[in-house]
Amino acid sequence: MKIDISRVQEHDKKLMESHNQSFYFLANTLEKQGFDVENIIKKIADFQVAIPSWALGAGGTRFGRFSYHGEPGNLEQKIADVGMLHALTQSAGAISLHIPWDVPEDPEKIKALTKSHGLTFDAMNSNTFQDQPNQEHSYKFGSLCSVNTKAREQAIQHNIDVIRIGEKLGSKSLTVWLADGANFPGQNNFQTVLKNTQDSLKQIYAQLPEDWKLFIEYKPYEPYFYSTVIQDWGTSFMLANECGPKAYTLVDLGHHLPNTNIEQIVATLMMKGKLGGFHFNDSKYGDDDLTVGSIKPYSLFLIFNELVYGMENNPQNPYPAWMIDASHNTKDPLEDLMQSLEAILMAYTKALLVDQKALKSAQQENDVVECQEILHQAYNTDVRLLLERARILNGGALSPIKAFRNLEIRKQLVLERGKHSVASGL
Amino acid sequence: MKIDISRVQEHDKKLMESHNQSFYFLANTLEKQGFDVENIIKKIADFQVAIPSWALGAGGTRFGRFSYHGEPGNLEQKIADVGMLHALTQSAGAISLHIPWDVPEDPEKIKALTKSHGLTFDAMNSNTFQDQPNQEHSYKFGSLCSVNTKAREQAIQHNIDVIRIGEKLGSKSLTVWLADGANFPGQNNFQTVLKNTQDSLKQIYAQLPEDWKLFIEYKPYEPYFYSTVIQDWGTSFMLANECGPKAYTLVDLGHHLPNTNIEQIVATLMMKGKLGGFHFNDSKYGDDDLTVGSIKPYSLFLIFNELVYGMENNPQNPYPAWMIDASHNTKDPLEDLMQSLEAILMAYTKALLVDQKALKSAQQENDVVECQEILHQAYNTDVRLLLERARILNGGALSPIKAFRNLEIRKQLVLERGKHSVASGL
Amino acid sequence: MKIDISRVQEHDKKLMESHNQSFYFLANTLEKQGFDVENIIKKIADFQVAIPSWALGAGGTRFGRFSYHGEPGNLEQKIADVGMLHALTQSAGAISLHIPWDVPEDPEKIKALTKSHGLTFDAMNSNTFQDQPNQEHSYKFGSLCSVNTKAREQAIQHNIDVIRIGEKLGSKSLTVWLADGANFPGQNNFQTVLKNTQDSLKQIYAQLPEDWKLFIEYKPYEPYFYSTVIQDWGTSFMLANECGPKAYTLVDLGHHLPNTNIEQIVATLMMKGKLGGFHFNDSKYGDDDLTVGSIKPYSLFLIFNELVYGMENNPQNPYPAWMIDASHNTKDPLEDLMQSLEAILMAYTKALLVDQKALKSAQQENDVVECQEILHQAYNTDVRLLLERARILNGGALSPIKAFRNLEIRKQLVLERGKHSVASGL
Amino acid sequence: MKIDISRVQEHDKKLMESHNQSFYFLANTLEKQGFDVENIIKKIADFQVAIPSWALGAGGTRFGRFSYHGEPGNLEQKIADVGMLHALTQSAGAISLHIPWDVPEDPEKIKALTKSHGLTFDAMNSNTFQDQPNQEHSYKFGSLCSVNTKAREQAIQHNIDVIRIGEKLGSKSLTVWLADGANFPGQNNFQTVLKNTQDSLKQIYAQLPEDWKLFIEYKPYEPYFYSTVIQDWGTSFMLANECGPKAYTLVDLGHHLPNTNIEQIVATLMMKGKLGGFHFNDSKYGDDDLTVGSIKPYSLFLIFNELVYGMENNPQNPYPAWMIDASHNTKDPLEDLMQSLEAILMAYTKALLVDQKALKSAQQENDVVECQEILHQAYNTDVRLLLERARILNGGALSPIKAFRNLEIRKQLVLERGKHSVASGL
Repeated sequence: MKIDISRVQEHDKKLMESHNQSFYFLANTLEKQGFDVENIIKKIADFQVAIPSWALGAGGTRFGRFSYHGEPGNLEQKIADVGMLHALTQSAGAISLHIPWDVPEDPEKIKALTKSHGLTFDAMNSNTFQDQPNQEHSYKFGSLCSVNTKAREQAIQHNIDVIRIGEKLGSKSLTVWLADGANFPGQNNFQTVLKNTQDSLKQIYAQLPEDWKLFIEYKPYEPYFYSTVIQDWGTSFMLANECGPKAYTLVDLGHHLPNTNIEQIVATLMMKGKLGGFHFNDSKYGDDDLTVGSIKPYSLFLIFNELVYGMENNPQNPYPAWMIDASHNTKDPLEDLMQSLEAILMAYTKALLVDQKALKSAQQENDVVECQEILHQAYNTDVRLLLERARILNGGALSPIKAFRNLEIRKQLVLERGKHSVASGL
Repeated sequence: MKIDISRVQEHDKKLMESHNQSFYFLANTLEKQGFDVENIIKKIADFQVAIPSWALGAGGTRFGRFSYHGEPGNLEQKIADVGMLHALTQSAGAISLHIPWDVPEDPEKIKALTKSHGLTFDAMNSNTFQDQPNQEHSYKFGSLCSVNTKAREQAIQHNIDVIRIGEKLGSKSLTVWLADGANFPGQNNFQTVLKNTQDSLKQIYAQLPEDWKLFIEYKPYEPYFYSTVIQDWGTSFMLANECGPKAYTLVDLGHHLPNTNIEQIVATLMMKGKLGGFHFNDSKYGDDDLTVGSIKPYSLFLIFNELVYGMENNPQNPYPAWMIDASHNTKDPLEDLMQSLEAILMAYTKALLVDQKALKSAQQENDVVECQEILHQAYNTDVRLLLERARILNGGALSPIKAFRNLEIRKQLVLERGKHSVASGL
Repeated sequence: MKIDISRVQEHDKKLMESHNQSFYFLANTLEKQGFDVENIIKKIADFQVAIPSWALGAGGTRFGRFSYHGEPGNLEQKIADVGMLHALTQSAGAISLHIPWDVPEDPEKIKALTKSHGLTFDAMNSNTFQDQPNQEHSYKFGSLCSVNTKAREQAIQHNIDVIRIGEKLGSKSLTVWLADGANFPGQNNFQTVLKNTQDSLKQIYAQLPEDWKLFIEYKPYEPYFYSTVIQDWGTSFMLANECGPKAYTLVDLGHHLPNTNIEQIVATLMMKGKLGGFHFNDSKYGDDDLTVGSIKPYSLFLIFNELVYGMENNPQNPYPAWMIDASHNTKDPLEDLMQSLEAILMAYTKALLVDQKALKSAQQENDVVECQEILHQAYNTDVRLLLERARILNGGALSPIKAFRNLEIRKQLVLERGKHSVASGL
Repeated sequence: MKIDISRVQEHDKKLMESHNQSFYFLANTLEKQGFDVENIIKKIADFQVAIPSWALGAGGTRFGRFSYHGEPGNLEQKIADVGMLHALTQSAGAISLHIPWDVPEDPEKIKALTKSHGLTFDAMNSNTFQDQPNQEHSYKFGSLCSVNTKAREQAIQHNIDVIRIGEKLGSKSLTVWLADGANFPGQNNFQTVLKNTQDSLKQIYAQLPEDWKLFIEYKPYEPYFYSTVIQDWGTSFMLANECGPKAYTLVDLGHHLPNTNIEQIVATLMMKGKLGGFHFNDSKYGDDDLTVGSIKPYSLFLIFNELVYGMENNPQNPYPAWMIDASHNTKDPLEDLMQSLEAILMAYTKALLVDQKALKSAQQENDVVECQEILHQAYNTDVRLLLERARILNGGALSPIKAFRNLEIRKQLVLERGKHSVASGL
């Protein structure tokens, strides 16, 4: 199904007077503070986040999974879901595919469908953390790191295959999340598996088209619980440097040990020109993959403060690839994604409101109190009206979740797809 | 299949001379230090740990599962597996069932089978963290804590049903692991769900036979990632007190926040007479459910030091129910359990070697250096020969894993059960 | 020195028009949403937080301390500092003393001085974590828990002495933060030290005046790094129950293991009528004692959401004693405290804006998305204008930090007290 | 004072028969397993660990400090203490100085004194985390990272001064532990302080003598509690690479976030030839600086397993500089250091007992169970007799702590130095 956005716009008309009144009051206040509100709204409107194809159905834990109704059962339906998200929010303008879960039978057709929803293809994702039916060599003990040469070669080839599929679709990057690791001390020789991984990544890198990027993800633990080959940004950064200029580190917010200062990692990577991609989610304990901004919204703001700073001051760093990587165990996946998009844009907007000049000056004088006041001045501002404004200007909904509920979209999806359709993937 | 232990014993005969020589040297050394070696070996021989029925197949993570071959496909085969473990190790003398995964069709027959392997039934385990096919009310948003009265009643009745099944088998306790919790702030009213849980547990407690115990487990997170209703020992202890004298706290080693001092919790609970059960495993990051003793063997020793102290000094506390609760993702489940049993007995034995009198005296004098020397004197002792001795005296194998491999048991299990048999449960 | 608030008010007059315009716009918006803004402002104005006497000078770490200028050198100056804070913020209406750092020579005179600043005496704090010059028995190995009977008796008597001093000043509660613990496994017998602590607390409790309360603090580690006798809320709650109805648990935000769900602890304690006191600060790693709200403002909001709920729904719980317990290593201590007060009142105000009725209804329906929307609706509101309003109505400053800087108060304090005056205490 | 080791040896004579008997039994067992016991003992005897000059007095926390008696009051006495340690243990053959705490007035005399104790000078340590009396520019807001050019230059010069002092003494390396960081978000511009630090380190590196090494330490937090400029190994490694081939990363066991896999970091650094130095201690919560091996001895073994592997397989990595960096708050500092030395040598010896060939083979076959068996076979061996043997062969004490107590050395130190002598430094 495709959403009839005119019905939403019709409904929103009644609310526009109230919105306008509040918006102009806020805009006026911000202008007095010296901000160029129009420009800020343009930046918000331009900010687009990719949705991964596996995030459209219910996720689960090792203890089980509670299905959601009307999940998309094939790639076309997944694209339709992202299309709907984008129509309502105007900020989900890309889709990120996972191979082998989303191999397109007819790439041209899929490409056209995606375009018809106003979407592009973000990074391609390979999968060597599971065995597929009839797979020759198991990844139980590793893939790109494996001491089994045949398993390693198979994993390298799989990644090259994913690049080839991506080329047909117009994607420009490959994300390698390498789950490889060990559950027990002694299981792996750390130096051997790191060296194997280096070699494998170099072989994949060698097959990268000229205008592509390679994103190397890191994670300290899970699915293995003693060690992970690419355990932290330092390892990813080292591997990316060894691969070459088209290789970058990818930061996933949930892939850190307790209390890690992630914003500092972001700043370091951008300074070195090596922050390639970013996966958004939130967490309290580990890689909980909760809705973005649901647990630590201030941390998200601090991270965006570095991202905005880097985008403005680090020409050596490419524009990063943004993606939501969350798991929806108890919420409607589409509503969950809308809440995530809102949180991302709120943090981004607040970061845009940081008075960088005043901050620099307070830092120079070690006026710690003032530094905090400046950040809080931006963070405490209620920016929801700016987001609404940007959405409406782009042709989206004033309140995407309300629109989604008013239009009873989930109900229609269930009618269309059946109650027990299950999304492929996690 | 049933193991032919005489073949093992035959093989071990050749190794006995070497074992004897080393054993007598160690025993002699320990006797000189004032230990009653015979008594220690008797204690080791008497120490029995329950095996849960769901630990006999490969576990997995939310990212997937790599099956093991020859897994037990039904309750009878699970009992056979535990029987084998017990025959080799002489320390796995009980099995702990999980309902509905292990509902016995003919309880009397199952009871007889279990007895024939020299096993008893340890605590029964209920399951309200998953929905079963055709279940009327979902546990997606909680069971004993649920705001949905019908779901709550269904969960209470399920626990009562589990007690009834247990009665038929001769079990004497019910373990309630309550996964109930929330993924997001605001999802639950903390006071409401705690009160509901109290009420539900009291209703279950009211149905407990006179000679039964109720074990209340706690866990800070997973499968929910913002809050868990019974998040820590304090909550479990409070609930157990409210239920009554037959209700106890159950400690699972993996169910704690980073850096928790678990041995202190053990000491407090035993002092208050409320430590009912104990689940063994090991972990580096969260509830990793790794082989016991594979990550932090010294912590395990410190915990056993408190357990031994409590067993000797706290008559107010019942003898705890011991169980291994690990997940076997990369090792042969039976070998993994043998390594866990060895680790448990080593820690127990070393704790038996702590010179309690000298320790008390050093503590009185705040001789911190000496306190550490006393613990290390016990911990550094190589006690493997004492474990071997106890096993042989009980009729088990000198080296269970070697025997398991020499007899090619897994190979036979695959022949018998098929390569792709999958254990029910997690 | 005493602040001349009329100078502040004079200055604020020029800003009132702008404030009024923005305030009425916000108030109007909130009234439309159904809120009683006048009542909310009254609640903000009534909310008073105690300042501890040791927080008025620079703190330090084990690696050293960088002094601040013009620190208060005696109790009178400390009271003057809190008086100034209160004059500007109208929310620091109490002082919490630490004995022996703040023994008043003439209690009546101190009482009168305090009253003249509009302040009352909050909880008294005892100190058994340091040895004082000429102290007979050392606390190096513990105080209330000590195996040395004389050290224990000395510590008990010290606490009773603190009560007696507090009685003279009009305080109504004693806070016991017990640092007692061990650096090494084996150093303490957990059961012995817990029992000693129970006995000691009971003896102190027995000396408590009829209208006093005893607050028992907990902390997992520091200054000892293996175990702390009162390591968590469960232990504190157990001890409070054993002491009697006037004994309560005190929650300090920094005294938890990584990732602890503190708001759930708050809810449980209030439900049981046992939350007595609250110490505010913020932290990223351990007991960092940073400015309140500087690291995790959303967590603070979630905690206040439970506090507000409890104050409205738990008559069994007394009104809690609020105190800031932070350390000021790099900021001006007074400015730091003003930032903390602002953060506390912001979180409190946002919690007052939670639509409790709608939340309850969404919880009943397990509408997790809506539950989050309701919390975020309150949290995202920019409430700074409400705080300004409450301050002005009470006679304080529109912007306390700006007023503090405009009046050059620190400069005057340095002139008055000298550049190198050092506050007694930490 | 200097220890009369002949008195110790005299006393040990009586115990040699028992030692010999047990030693030969163990040696025989190990030889049967294929080990070259003589070679292992030689390696143990050769292993020397530096003692830092600041570890000879009692440490403290921000809450206070309990002094120890007879602490060394000057550099000569510190050297005497280390000399005593070395005489008893034969494994503390170096001292590591801290400037400005240990500036030698007459370097030649100090050099001779040190040599007379059989000691050498290990790495020099600079100090820019405290302000010294009369210091011109404060380090309150940073040193090598400072936005204040003068403070930065002063800190660079201080490090160069430390090199110059070290040259006179015969040291060959400089350790830079940079405490620089921030307590609050926004306080520092991450990119600016990192860039300043790079530049400063390069200037120091430029002044390094040809045969010197620069060790760059990292630490996630403390004394600052929001961010540290060199927060992790990745940052240190990056900075070391930028400085040049004589710059290395230094690993301090306590300087990691919870649950970090340190052994993997060690393996990576050695593979890259960049592990320069190692600071030993133990911890449960943060940088607790407890006695080595007192909390997580198995982790220490796993780390030594990587160190031994690297020393045997990574010619690209220099032989690392070993140092104990612990704080002695409740134990006699000298006894504490003896316990630490014992723990280090035990872990090293056990790592030498790992059957590397069998391990490699089991890893190749992904025989995870066997990998663990191999590590445990080494770890469970009671190696204390090997340590005794190595000590005696080198002329040390059978049991250093017992000798220290029998000779009543602390009593004599108190007589000599006074009860209230306080060591300079932390």
